[in-house]
Formats: sequence, C-alpha cells, structure tokens
Amino acid sequence: MLRSALRLRRSMATFSGLRLNEVVNVLEKFAPASLAEKWDNVGLLIEPSADKHVERILLTNDLTEPVLGEAVEKNVDLIISYHPPIFRPLTRITMSNWKERIVIGCLANSKALYCPHTAWDKVVGGVNDWLAKAVDIKGIKPLVPEPGAVDGTGSGRLVETNMPISQVVHALQDHINNSVHVAYAVDHHPKTFVHTVGICAGSGGSVLKGIQADLVITGEMSHHELLDFNHNGTTVLLCNHSNSERGFLREFQCILKERLQEKCEVIVSEKDKDPLQTAFRSNSQAVQQVKQ
Amino acid sequence: MLRSALRLRRSMATFSGLRLNEVVNVLEKFAPASLAEKWDNVGLLIEPSADKHVERILLTNDLTEPVLGEAVEKNVDLIISYHPPIFRPLTRITMSNWKERIVIGCLANSKALYCPHTAWDKVVGGVNDWLAKAVDIKGIKPLVPEPGAVDGTGSGRLVETNMPISQVVHALQDHINNSVHVAYAVDHHPKTFVHTVGICAGSGGSVLKGIQADLVITGEMSHHELLDFNHNGTTVLLCNHSNSERGFLREFQCILKERLQEKCEVIVSEKDKDPLQTAFRSNSQAVQQVKQ
Amino acid sequence: MLRSALRLRRSMATFSGLRLNEVVNVLEKFAPASLAEKWDNVGLLIEPSADKHVERILLTNDLTEPVLGEAVEKNVDLIISYHPPIFRPLTRITMSNWKERIVIGCLANSKALYCPHTAWDKVVGGVNDWLAKAVDIKGIKPLVPEPGAVDGTGSGRLVETNMPISQVVHALQDHINNSVHVAYAVDHHPKTFVHTVGICAGSGGSVLKGIQADLVITGEMSHHELLDFNHNGTTVLLCNHSNSERGFLREFQCILKERLQEKCEVIVSEKDKDPLQTAFRSNSQAVQQVKQ
Amino acid sequence: MLRSALRLRRSMATFSGLRLNEVVNVLEKFAPASLAEKWDNVGLLIEPSADKHVERILLTNDLTEPVLGEAVEKNVDLIISYHPPIFRPLTRITMSNWKERIVIGCLANSKALYCPHTAWDKVVGGVNDWLAKAVDIKGIKPLVPEPGAVDGTGSGRLVETNMPISQVVHALQDHINNSVHVAYAVDHHPKTFVHTVGICAGSGGSVLKGIQADLVITGEMSHHELLDFNHNGTTVLLCNHSNSERGFLREFQCILKERLQEKCEVIVSEKDKDPLQTAFRSNSQAVQQVKQ
Amino acid sequence: MLRSALRLRRSMATFSGLRLNEVVNVLEKFAPASLAEKWDNVGLLIEPSADKHVERILLTNDLTEPVLGEAVEKNVDLIISYHPPIFRPLTRITMSNWKERIVIGCLANSKALYCPHTAWDKVVGGVNDWLAKAVDIKGIKPLVPEPGAVDGTGSGRLVETNMPISQVVHALQDHINNSVHVAYAVDHHPKTFVHTVGICAGSGGSVLKGIQADLVITGEMSHHELLDFNHNGTTVLLCNHSNSERGFLREFQCILKERLQEKCEVIVSEKDKDPLQTAFRSNSQAVQQVKQ
Amino acid sequence: MLRSALRLRRSMATFSGLRLNEVVNVLEKFAPASLAEKWDNVGLLIEPSADKHVERILLTNDLTEPVLGEAVEKNVDLIISYHPPIFRPLTRITMSNWKERIVIGCLANSKALYCPHTAWDKVVGGVNDWLAKAVDIKGIKPLVPEPGAVDGTGSGRLVETNMPISQVVHALQDHINNSVHVAYAVDHHPKTFVHTVGICAGSGGSVLKGIQADLVITGEMSHHELLDFNHNGTTVLLCNHSNSERGFLREFQCILKERLQEKCEVIVSEKDKDPLQTAFRSNSQAVQQVKQ
Repeated sequence: MLRSALRLRRSMATFSGLRLNEVVNVLEKFAPASLAEKWDNVGLLIEPSADKHVERILLTNDLTEPVLGEAVEKNVDLIISYHPPIFRPLTRITMSNWKERIVIGCLANSKALYCPHTAWDKVVGGVNDWLAKAVDIKGIKPLVPEPGAVDGTGSGRLVETNMPISQVVHALQDHINNSVHVAYAVDHHPKTFVHTVGICAGSGGSVLKGIQADLVITGEMSHHELLDFNHNGTTVLLCNHSNSERGFLREFQCILKERLQEKCEVIVSEKDKDPLQTAFRSNSQAVQQVKQ
Repeated sequence: MLRSALRLRRSMATFSGLRLNEVVNVLEKFAPASLAEKWDNVGLLIEPSADKHVERILLTNDLTEPVLGEAVEKNVDLIISYHPPIFRPLTRITMSNWKERIVIGCLANSKALYCPHTAWDKVVGGVNDWLAKAVDIKGIKPLVPEPGAVDGTGSGRLVETNMPISQVVHALQDHINNSVHVAYAVDHHPKTFVHTVGICAGSGGSVLKGIQADLVITGEMSHHELLDFNHNGTTVLLCNHSNSERGFLREFQCILKERLQEKCEVIVSEKDKDPLQTAFRSNSQAVQQVKQ
Repeated sequence: MLRSALRLRRSMATFSGLRLNEVVNVLEKFAPASLAEKWDNVGLLIEPSADKHVERILLTNDLTEPVLGEAVEKNVDLIISYHPPIFRPLTRITMSNWKERIVIGCLANSKALYCPHTAWDKVVGGVNDWLAKAVDIKGIKPLVPEPGAVDGTGSGRLVETNMPISQVVHALQDHINNSVHVAYAVDHHPKTFVHTVGICAGSGGSVLKGIQADLVITGEMSHHELLDFNHNGTTVLLCNHSNSERGFLREFQCILKERLQEKCEVIVSEKDKDPLQTAFRSNSQAVQQVKQ
Repeated sequence: MLRSALRLRRSMATFSGLRLNEVVNVLEKFAPASLAEKWDNVGLLIEPSADKHVERILLTNDLTEPVLGEAVEKNVDLIISYHPPIFRPLTRITMSNWKERIVIGCLANSKALYCPHTAWDKVVGGVNDWLAKAVDIKGIKPLVPEPGAVDGTGSGRLVETNMPISQVVHALQDHINNSVHVAYAVDHHPKTFVHTVGICAGSGGSVLKGIQADLVITGEMSHHELLDFNHNGTTVLLCNHSNSERGFLREFQCILKERLQEKCEVIVSEKDKDPLQTAFRSNSQAVQQVKQ
Repeated sequence: MLRSALRLRRSMATFSGLRLNEVVNVLEKFAPASLAEKWDNVGLLIEPSADKHVERILLTNDLTEPVLGEAVEKNVDLIISYHPPIFRPLTRITMSNWKERIVIGCLANSKALYCPHTAWDKVVGGVNDWLAKAVDIKGIKPLVPEPGAVDGTGSGRLVETNMPISQVVHALQDHINNSVHVAYAVDHHPKTFVHTVGICAGSGGSVLKGIQADLVITGEMSHHELLDFNHNGTTVLLCNHSNSERGFLREFQCILKERLQEKCEVIVSEKDKDPLQTAFRSNSQAVQQVKQ
Repeated sequence: MLRSALRLRRSMATFSGLRLNEVVNVLEKFAPASLAEKWDNVGLLIEPSADKHVERILLTNDLTEPVLGEAVEKNVDLIISYHPPIFRPLTRITMSNWKERIVIGCLANSKALYCPHTAWDKVVGGVNDWLAKAVDIKGIKPLVPEPGAVDGTGSGRLVETNMPISQVVHALQDHINNSVHVAYAVDHHPKTFVHTVGICAGSGGSVLKGIQADLVITGEMSHHELLDFNHNGTTVLLCNHSNSERGFLREFQCILKERLQEKCEVIVSEKDKDPLQTAFRSNSQAVQQVKQ
C-alpha cells in the first residue's frame, strides 16, 4: 500500500509558504518542547534538508503507514503527528519494521515531521483543556501544575462541575463523537451527581492515581487501575486512547492557520483513526444499565 | 455496606466438609503454585486458624468488597479468588484502604483465601484453554511452553483455525457472553479468514508481543500495543480484562465439586463482574463496519 | 499456647474509655510518626474496625506470642509494642510463620496495634533520654539533631559527665536492672574517667559510628564494630538489645495515663523480656576484672 | 604503645626456617583460598619482599595494635590472623586510621600477613569442626555443603546429639573456657533435651537462618534474629564473636608445626582476646534460671 | 560541501548487479553479524527500499561527510563502512548533527549501508589476521577464542615470532604505510628480541589487558594502559586507531569482487583517512632512539 | 632493578627540613584536595610514620618503579607524584603487582607520597594554566568553573587567541619540548586562523566534549572522539598524555621552593617520561602537510 501511495501528485496549493524553521518557531511558541515530560521525544524529529520550504501541513494523531500514504498523495511538506513515531531510539533504518519504514518514507519523499505529545497535553488551551469541554466547567486547574509556567499549565486537569453521571456520559459521547466505556464506583449509579472530575487524555492511570474526584475521564486504563478507582469512590469513563485526543486536531487546525497568517494550508488526516472498534452485542446488560 | 454484609447468616449446608489443608492439596494438584510466574503472589494467602474446616467455597474473579459481603452473607469458609487481592506487600492492616479492609474482613469473619492466578493461566485445562474454546480449534499449543512440565502447559496459547474474523467475533461474544472490541490489522476486514490465533487471558500485551498470528484474543491492551499489532498484520479482539477470565469459573465449579467428592458446596459469586461497561453510541461508525 | 490464651476473659475495667483514633492522636502528640526513620514502619499498624473503642492498653517492648496471649487473657483493646512486629512487608497471612500468626491473633480477637519505634528514640523525653539517666548528666544533646524539630530531638544522645568506667557500669546495671557487657578501649581500665558518653538504645552500631566519645552505651554491637571503637579510644557498654529499651515502658505508663486523663487503664506486660540470658562461668576472668 | 613495641628484639630462635612461599603452600594445602566466600579477602595479604624468610609464626584471631606490638617484640616473621584486617579496600595508607597503621607497622618491620577466615570455616577439621566438639557428636555434616569439595566441607555444621540444654551450656563453657549467653526457645527450659544442633563460628545469623534445629551455637546474633529463632522453637547459645573461634588456634598450632616439619616456631598470641567482657549483676534472674 | 556532493553523476558501470539482500547474504557468509560483540551495532543499518538493486559498492573505514559526498559523486548503491556511524541510538534525524546528516544523505540519495565492525575483527582472514601479517608469523591463534566457531575465530590474535623490536617497527610501518608510536617496556630497547606478540586492531586496551606477550600492536591506548603494559614487561606499538584497520579494505576488495562473481563493481574510498597526523619535531629524542 | 635501587645512599642535604604535616599544609594551601574530582584519589596517600621529617622532595608525573629507584638512590623523604599510583583500592599488598610493589617500596624505605592530580588541574596557576601558555592568550577562563571557588578555578580552560594552526603547532612543540599530533577539522588547513582554543591536560575527551572552539589541545583522545571534533569544525592537537602535564613540574619546583622558604630541597625526577615515543617514518604524508 505504501508503494502506491508514494506516487507523487501535482500540488495545487496557492499558498506562499514559509521556511520550516519559521513554522517550527510558531509551533514552539504555542507549546515549547521544554514543557514535555523528561521521558518523551518531542519537537522536530525529521528534517529532510536544511532549507525545507513548507506550503502544506497535515495534522494527525498517529503517523501510521496509511497516513503517510495520504501525506504523499496530498503532497504535504510537513506532518504534525501528536504521538512521536520514534520512541524507542533507532539503531538501524530498514524495511523490516513499520516505524523504520515511516522514517524512510519521510526522508525519501522529503516530508518533515514534528511531534508535540506531552507538550500539547500540558499547555493552556491544549489537549486536556479541549477534552475538559465535554463537562460543564465551573472551575478548572491542572492536576500537576508546571513549576515556573503560566497559570493553568500542567499535567491533567481537575474540573468542578455539577452533573449526573448519565449526562456526563452523553455529553462526552457527543464531544468525542464516539462510544464511551463506563466503570461505576462501588456506590455510584447513572443518576449520581458528580462535582469533581479528573481529566487526562491518553493513558491516564499514573497521572490520575490517588486524586480525590467523583469521576475521571481518560483514554485507557488497566483492569487493576479501574478496580482501585472504583473502590475509592471514583467512577471512570474511558474513550479509547486516541479518541480522547484526536478531536483536538480540528481545534488546532484553526489555531495554526491563524498563527501562520494563512501562508500555509493546514489539513487534518482522513486516514487517521483509533485502531479499536466495539463489536456491539445487542442484548448485553451494559447498554441497559446506561439507559436507566 | 461491608458492615451490614458482615452479619453472620445461619449456614444451611449439609455437606460434611474437609480440612482446609485437604482442600488446598486438591487445588495444588489441579495447578501447583510453583507453576505461577516469579512476580506473582499465589496459593493460600489467608489462613484464619490452624484447623480451619471448610464446608462451603465461593469462586470469584476479583475479591472486591461486594464479593466479600456476599461471602459473609452466604457463610462460606473459603474464597477462591483468581486474582490475588494482596499484591503490593502490606506493612499495616487498617480501615483506610480497601485491600487492607479485605484482609480484616476475612480474618474477623474467619474466611480463608486461596488465589491461583498465573498457575491457572498456564495449566492444561485452565483459563487460556477455556478462552481458546471460542475458536474452532484445529491445533493448539502454549506460546511459551513450561520447561519440565506436562505437554500443553505454559503461558498463552497458539491456535490453528480457519474462520473469517466476523465469525470469530460472534463466537467470542457468545463464549464470554458479552461485547467485544475489534482492532483490524491494516489490510484486514470482517471477511478476512484467519488461520492462526494467539490467546492470552487478562493483559496479553507482553506475552503476545512479537508472535506471528493473524488474530489475537486477550482482555486488554494499550493503544500503542494495538497499533503495533495492527501494523504487523494482526487483528486484535479485546474482551475487557476479567471477561476474558471469568467464564472459566463455571467450568472450574464442576471440576472442583468432583475432585472434592461432593464433600463441599462450591458456588460462583453473583456480585463479581468486570468494572467496565460500554455506553453505546447508536449511530457510530464502529457498529456499521462489523455488520459488513 | 496461643490457642488457650485466646479464650476471652470477662473484662473488669471500670474505665470509660476513648475511641481508638482519639488514643492515636494522643500518642502522635507525644511522638509523631513523621519523626521516625524512612526505613521504619511505625504508627497504627492494625486497626480491627473503624469505630474501635479502647478501655485497656498493654505496653510491651516486643509483641511475641506469649505477650499476645497475655493481651487476650487480660482483655486489652490496644497493644503498644515499641518494636513493630510487621517489618518485612507481608504477601500472605497464614499459620506457618509466627509474625503472621500475631496478625491473625490481633484481628481474630479485635486487638489494635500501635508501634512507635524510632519516633520514640528521637523524641525529647523518649527512650534515649531515659537510657541516658544511667549517667550523671552535666550536658546532653542529640547525636544527629532532627532538622526543623524542637531542640533536643534527634537520633542518639551525647552526654557530658565525669565518672570512672566502673561507676558507670554499676549505675547502668541498676538503671536497667540487669547485667552489662564491657569492651574496654585499648588504653582504658575500670578506673579511667570518662567525660563524653554516646547513647543509643537498641543496635547502636551505625548511629554511633565515627563519633568522638570516651564511652558508648547501646544494646548490641557486632564484633568488628567493637574492635573499631576500642581501637579508636572508646569503651563500649552493651545492655542486650531490649534491656536498653524496656525500662522506658514504666516511665511511659505514667505519661500515657495522665495524657489520657485516666480514661483508659494502662498496664505493662509481664511476659515481655529480652530473649538472651547469660550462663555465668563462676571463675572466669571477666568478672574479676570488673571488680578491680 | 605501638612505637615502644616496634623496638627490635634480638631473635633467639634456632629454627632453620622456610621461604615464605613454601609456608604459604603448606597453608593453602590445609585450606585453599578458593574455598573462601566470594565477598571475603583471604590469603597472603602482606608480602614485605620477594624472598622473605620465615623462622617464627604468630597465630592470632584479630590483628589489633597490641598483637602487632607483640609480633615485633617477639620478632616473628609471619602473622597468621584468622580475620583479615584489610576488608574495605584501601585508597591510602596513613597514620590516621588503625587499620592503615597495621599495614604500615607490618611493612616497616618486614612482617608478612596471611589471613584464612572463611576458608578455615569451611574446611574439614577447621573452625566449625572444632566448635562442634563442645557437643556429644552422634553425626555431623555441613549446613551448606561445598560443591565439588571433599565430603564434610562447607559452611556451618549440623550435629546430631542427645543432651539436655543445661549440659550443652556447661560443656560449651568448658570448651571455650568462657561465659555463654542463653536465649531459650519459647517452650524450652534447661532440662529440655536437644537432638539437632546448628553450629556457626562468628556471626551465624545468616548461615543459620531458616534451619531446623533444636539449638544453635554461634558467636553473636542480633536481637531480632534471636526472637525469630526462639519463636521457631530453637534455643540459641552465644559465645561472643571471637570466643567461638579463638580456641581453634591452639589446635592449629599443633597441626601447623607438624606440617612445617618443625622447621618454624609457631606461637599463639598472648595479647589477642575478645573485646567484650560481662559485668555480672549478682542477683539477676539469668543466673538462677541456668542453675535449675 | 555535502550539498554540492549530492548532485547525481551519470553511472558508467557495466555491471549487471545483484539485489541488496543477495549482497548482504554474501557479506554475512564472510562474517556473520552474530559474531559481533553484544554492545556493537552491525549488519544492514540503512535499507532505502525493499527491492534495492546494487551495481557499485564503496568500501570505507569511517563514513564521514566527505566519504558520503564521494559515494554520491561516484553513484554507488551500497556503502560498506567498517565502523557503524549509528552507534548511540537515534531519537530524531535532523540537520543539526553530523551523524544524523549522514542518515539523511543516505536515504535522500538511496544509498544502502552495511557495517561489519567486530564481526570482521573476529573472523578468520579478517582485520586482525591482516594486521598480524606485519610480523613474521611462526604461530597464530585468537586471544579470546569464539565458542562454537571455526578454529582461529575470536577477538585479537596472539602471534609467535622471533624479531628484534626495531625490525617489527619498520615492518609495521611498511604494512600500514604510516608512522608508528613506540612505548618500550621498562627493560626493553630497540634490539630486544620479541617472541610473542598480541594483536588487536582499533582500541586494544581491554582485549589485550592482562595477556602475557613481549610486544603488543594496536591502534590506540590510554596513558595509564601504556604504563601498565610497560611495567609488566610488554612493549607497545600504536598505529593510530584507523590505520590499524584501513589497510584491510584493499584485501577485502579482492575477496568481495570474487565472491560476488564480478557482478558488482567494488571500489575503495579515496576520501577516507585517519583524522590524526603527527607534526614531527625534527630533533626530538624519539627518532634517535629508534635509529639505535 | 628495584632491589639495587633500594640501597641507601648517604644524604648530603644541608636543608633544615620541616615536619611532613607542615609540608602537606603548604601543598593543600596551593591546591586543596577538596578541589579534586569525586572519583579521584588525592592528597597524602602514604604516611610512613606519625612524625615524618622532610628534607628532600622529588617531583614526578608518574611514580613508576624506575622513579621509585631514583627516590631511594637520592634519599628523598617525600615524593609528589601528579598521578596517584593507588587508584583501584587495594585489598592486599604483595610483590605480584607493580602498584603494590610501589607501596611496599615506599613504606620499607620510609618515603611519604602526596598526589594532587585533578586538584592541580583545576587550581589557578596549575597544570591547565601552564599548558595554555603555549598559545598567545588574549583571554582565558575555565571550561567548567568551580562553584564557590576563586575566579579562574575549574576544569579545563577556554582561551581566546588569533593564530594560524601551523603557528600553534610549533609553539606547542616548543612549550612541551616534544612532537605533537594534529587532526584537522574537515574544512581546516595549516593556515586557518583559530580564535578560540579549548585546553585540557591529560585525557581531555570528556571535559572538552561539546564545547565550541576552533581548536583543542589535550594529551590523548580516542579515534571516535577525534572524528566527532573534526566533523564539528574543531582541529585537535594531541601531546601524548603526560607530555601535556609534565612541563608543569619545572614551574611548580620554583613555586614550592619559595613557599617552603627554602627549608627543603625540591628536585624533579630524571627517570620520569611518557611511555610513548613516535617511530618516525621519514617520507610520510603527515610531515609534508604541516610544512605547507
């Protein structure tokens, strides 16, 4: 599939474009790489030449091979992938591994790659602030404030609200435009009102661990983490990992267009999607319970 | 809730019973504790007195507070919980933490506790062999054979079969009696036939990593593990952690009754369930795709 | 022996009693758990129920099985054991190990357990200050002052005095009411006057290491530590581990009674004793030398 | 003291002597350095010149400064010290530390130093076999047999016998010619008969840990180790660290003389002694109990 | 410089060529990657496409930017660089670092990269066997034989010979066609005859450590390693790191041509050279001494 | 050789001398041991007696056996060796290893030993400031300033200058009185002017790593470090390890004489030299290039 995707298409953009390092400066101004976690690998990860010119930009949550094919098909110059495809450092770059093929495909086709990941998670107006909008916000602050940064910056969010759980579930389904998984606290039910909500896009298990909240919203969590939250009085809503993050790309598309003063075209990937889909079993008990 | 559950109920069992160490010997004969992984904590975890007599046994996947309440209500003498509730070793035993309250509740009410976990995963006729029955089995062997043990013993299972994915999904839904999540490999679709299936109850990410299979079935897996499997040509079916394990309890109930020569009553918990339920969004794309 | 001790005795106390958490607050006020060493395991270690009522309290240095039998026999509600019987964290609680049997015995008989250990060592008026009273004190300060705490708080004590060694030996024998072991510095003898004395109840080897003192008093020390002290000009007096600590319990009995405003009965264990006794060899050289 | 001791005395020996490496060969034949524990530092530790001639040898348990003074006074050529005085490796050799002064004293006065330590503990006919002779031996074997070595070689000893504890205490006092400390198992008393006895010279806590024995004999043990043995049904006799080892020197004196074919004089130190002496408190309970 | 070098030159080769994986098979047959040290990074490090065709191959010791320019200028398809330019694993691939620029240059210009390093060091007929030819060989074997491999395989070489040092120096200068550094053993001089010679191309300090040899030949060694060898009676000859390796490329050129059955052109880099050159001080003592 | 060197020569010094600790105080005032790196082993390493008197002092870069022979021959009391001969801590002191023989030789002949190493590297007016004098200094500062120390103290030096490389090479050859090795940056040649010069005596690879400089001067560096510097635009000059340090001894001889107020004789070793000498190959390409 990659091979056919690599055929070059004639570009139809009428944008004047900018130099790659100018675009990177705009991205770093929105969310500096220094905000990211120590273990993370963010910023400009692939730079195909020293004077790369950028007219078209593709936004994606994950840079998979179908998305790279789309990037080549649509003749983009820069891919902004929320998750970094290079995470375990590379000792070789061959065709035998899909992550190495991504690097080869970028360099052979002169695509630059920028990955913000946890820098976008922490920044004001970033991924977690977007995810929090699923709830009626009466107050909001980071779970782990970033020392020395602007107020509101940090890991996760703690939101004050006043809603029954069933209403949060429906609002979250609308916000992420997808199904949601619910794990009720030992003494909660759909009509229980929640007042404090912990938010963490992606895998929230470690950031949310030990917080005092009536409900938490995250992408994924392990069985044993779920049991712990439920026994400590916290209901958990899971969106699937990337569904808790992907919706932000539409919001960021507008932000970036404006900050680049319309000099570059910014598009969102059509091939990017969460790998997981639910095979619904129509008369299962789960559905009934949420309808109460 | 615990308190009210702790009121003792009059026992109505007419079983002659056995000494606790006799029951433990029967359990160890089915799956010896030495089979378990090094990091695991299995076997007799709570022994309330040296000469404990056992007439009634409760089987559960997780020993939560509602399940302990049920054990007290039903006056059982021994709880067999697949997952060990004591995992991080204890330095104190107080009311401030749900796992410590479980220990207090067992000892104050004289309930013994036995946990098999990975010993049951590896044994022939155990949890993974049960889960594999969701598929038409043309051949089966362990993914990691146990050195020095009976043939067929080991971690995970690799099954040979010949079914389209959509049929595996429906068969699995029937086997576990619950919904299933599907993550298609990059070039798979519902009608793709699969010939090799990796099986691992619980969190299968590390045991299944790197195997060559068309499809894998497990309880839960992280987003980044899913992407890796899908890009390496493997479709993934997730059952939710404990739904991949719980169904074995019904099968084990029969095995144990017979091995105890009907001297003890063996019941399966009614309160034990997976913490996670799916709040289905009716017109989502996921459902459509499976119906193809 | 435990079994017979577990028979409940009718309580004859006429004390109104207090709630367990009220007693714990009084104990924490005397010596907060936060004072203890990082590696230690102190505070409320066993809490048999959320609303435990306390009328009678038993003080002991070590919570052995005979002492637990005494606690059951005398119907106490709370045991305060200087040493924590749970030190290596527990992964199971069975009859096969005496420390696990202690936990079972406490919970099955609804005894709470509180252990202060190094918090009492450091606090002003605690175990080390009590042990130091064996010497004529002309000045006293901690060996390792506790940062941010009241003056006088910290590990070990350094005492200024002016006594010959033989007199210190006799005073110490009277204070702890037991025999004492003497290891003379290379150029000391019974009539040598000492001016600075290091004090550390229990195993003092690491706290006392490297200090400048004419003499040190502790519970136990290894052969190679003894050689080091003696070659660096320091005589060592050993009391046996718990004999350097147990005498404080009588002093603490009065303190606690008063702080609880006589609402609880406070008794000292009669079964608690150091495991070690000297089988005296009448004409040995050791005895002669001390008499010089 | 060292200084005066360093004055050279005229040698009066009429022994022909041997080359140092010949003596070392004889010592290695008795107990090869390869037998010693991995963490130990044994063998020829100080070799003052390549062709050192040895006429007189001093045996000691610990090489303290008084013993070094004796070695200079008596003009010995080689010191055999059971414990190695160099244990923590040296980065400098100055007058500021007693162990460095020992090294300086040896080299400045041309004394060689050989230390066998755990090689002597393990060898057949070594320190532990000597210590075991305090008991009526009906059977004897190592606690941890040495793989690939002659039968009977290894760490510690397990002895079969049939004596009441009080008789073992008296026999041990006679064998080591010193006082003994007794810690009775929870249900033992002086008249209890013991059938299995664990033996470990020096600090036996870790070698003896977990063995099944009615009684153990060692040099020293910590308070918490004592409690563990006593609660597991084992009485403990302590000799003080070096008193459990020193007596072997007299036995080895004969062995060595013969093996060197009387070509060297072999003497035992008069200055070497255990640093610890008991200051007996005459009417203490301990004495009474042993007399029962 | 890189940029101008990247202009493509028309290829004039009339070789039929082979598929990249066929060439790799031939290289692995000469020296399998599994021979290399655990810490090394060898084999096919850059594979620009799945069906790469190879007509021209460039051999180099180090893949520097001038050598990459030469590869582009000469239109080679595969670079075989003895040292791997990717050693510290990569987390990004940008223009800011010379090693990352090498990767970009290879992929943008479709150059494959194969690096043998320590596999060539160990193989029979490899780098160390080549370096050993500077000496009259009366016998030769590996310093560290490779378990399970053909006789003669392993790290370093030990050569038996019979030459005066001055003659070895001149022969080595001729063999590597360059200057040589000499560090004489404490009691050696130019006319001393040597009989055993240790050989290790590159940085030989650790492989050669502790061997018994009259002389060792390697590329580089630290000052303290030199002192150790000289005091242990071993003279050291240093060639500079890559001068001890580079000469093998000419030999390998012939081997490879033949093994590829003349289907590919094989050339040796003209830009590759050791970075270090000696600025000679005409009347220095060193020269005099060698002329003796 | 050592043996004959150890014969005592009659001392002819007419210096009054000082006590060893007085000399050490003077040395510590010049460069305190606390300045040295954490991993280093500096200060008074051998102190043969508590009241050692010092009349004659020998300065050396390395304390080898020939230098120790010279010290005995010339009857010096204190050896100041820049490099510490004790680096890996000692567990024994025998004739089987040259570093242990050095210790024996010092103590048997009553020589004290003081080693400054990295304390001299960092101090103002120390080894690195001496090495920097090879260059026209227009500005100088440490590469890694020492926190809390006098300005100018720290590891390495960064010098501002304005010279062509060929002139630096000749000046350095004169300053160290020896040959020099040159590794040119990728686009440098002998006539390139350099403006910033990094200095680090000894093995400078890690201290100099990553600095921005046109040229660096150090003693030795590995092949791969050289490649990194050259590709980052930095030319490297290597002096051989101890040639980058030894010249300072002449300068320090004057400093020390004055600070000791001429009470001790201070001499520089005649036997101390770098182990490495270059066997010059007359028509090699290296020489030609420098002459350009």
